[in-house]
Amino acid sequence: MTSATLAAPVTLDAAGVPFTLRRSRHHDLPDLIGLLAADALRANDDSTSPERRGAYEAAFQAIDGDPAQTLVTVEDAAGDVVGTMQLTLIPGLARGGATRMQVEAVRVAESARGCGLGTAMLRWAIEEARSRGAALVQLTSDARREDAHRFYDRLGFTPSHVGFKLFL
Amino acid sequence: MTSATLAAPVTLDAAGVPFTLRRSRHHDLPDLIGLLAADALRANDDSTSPERRGAYEAAFQAIDGDPAQTLVTVEDAAGDVVGTMQLTLIPGLARGGATRMQVEAVRVAESARGCGLGTAMLRWAIEEARSRGAALVQLTSDARREDAHRFYDRLGFTPSHVGFKLFL
Repeated sequence: MTSATLAAPVTLDAAGVPFTLRRSRHHDLPDLIGLLAADALRANDDSTSPERRGAYEAAFQAIDGDPAQTLVTVEDAAGDVVGTMQLTLIPGLARGGATRMQVEAVRVAESARGCGLGTAMLRWAIEEARSRGAALVQLTSDARREDAHRFYDRLGFTPSHVGFKLFL
Repeated sequence: MTSATLAAPVTLDAAGVPFTLRRSRHHDLPDLIGLLAADALRANDDSTSPERRGAYEAAFQAIDGDPAQTLVTVEDAAGDVVGTMQLTLIPGLARGGATRMQVEAVRVAESARGCGLGTAMLRWAIEEARSRGAALVQLTSDARREDAHRFYDRLGFTPSHVGFKLFL
């Protein structure tokens, strides 16, 4: 594992439209929180209200300081933040000592949907996983997100598992 | 995050039978690989054959050197290794800046099943997640493992997500 991942920005091409994918910086935090808060299924969990800011701040520092984490920001040509996702490299004994790349918190702004940006982001993530020595890429998607399931299926993912959560 | 997690062994009580849960050490590796290889659903992926040993060795070192990882070994009173699981602490922005505790590679030896050892292991993991500041515990289970799904349901987990995997 190295913290040099995504040291330089990458240009993504989504149906001829260029986007910039780069490591998230601290000043992106309000935009990233905005993308999370715009998700209808997480309206109770994510919010741009000032009293929530401390928890996001602490989380950003924890992510940014951990070389196993890559928090991604995607900008359009105007410099507006239109996408995010978090990658986590997890070493493991199972499956022959396989390292996994886990993808969490994938979000694309409403304004940037339908042009293939999500596909370009995930294709980049899959290549990043390969280049960092992962043997598999894994993620879970809320069972209600049927469009997302078709999206991951088209990318070659298999819905082989049930994702369980327990809130503390 | 601290590497001091599970600094001392813990005694688990499974229906009156005591087991010791502790941080995995290098000399446990053959036993842990044996537990993984005994899993019928992973017969093609995990094996005790010597040529696979290097990959497991590298994975053990990567896990052991990462303070976000806790690889657990469970022994019975005779000192035989009868259980394992891996915990990973993942900081994140989503869900209000929630840290997640992910559980992977839960295995209990055939000889130790049916006495509540798995339940005791997972209850310990849930308490460990709480004490390390996690807001949720998450795991995925192969869709074919129906007994495991009932087990996680009884522990309070909700099967709210679909788990997708892509092998590289």
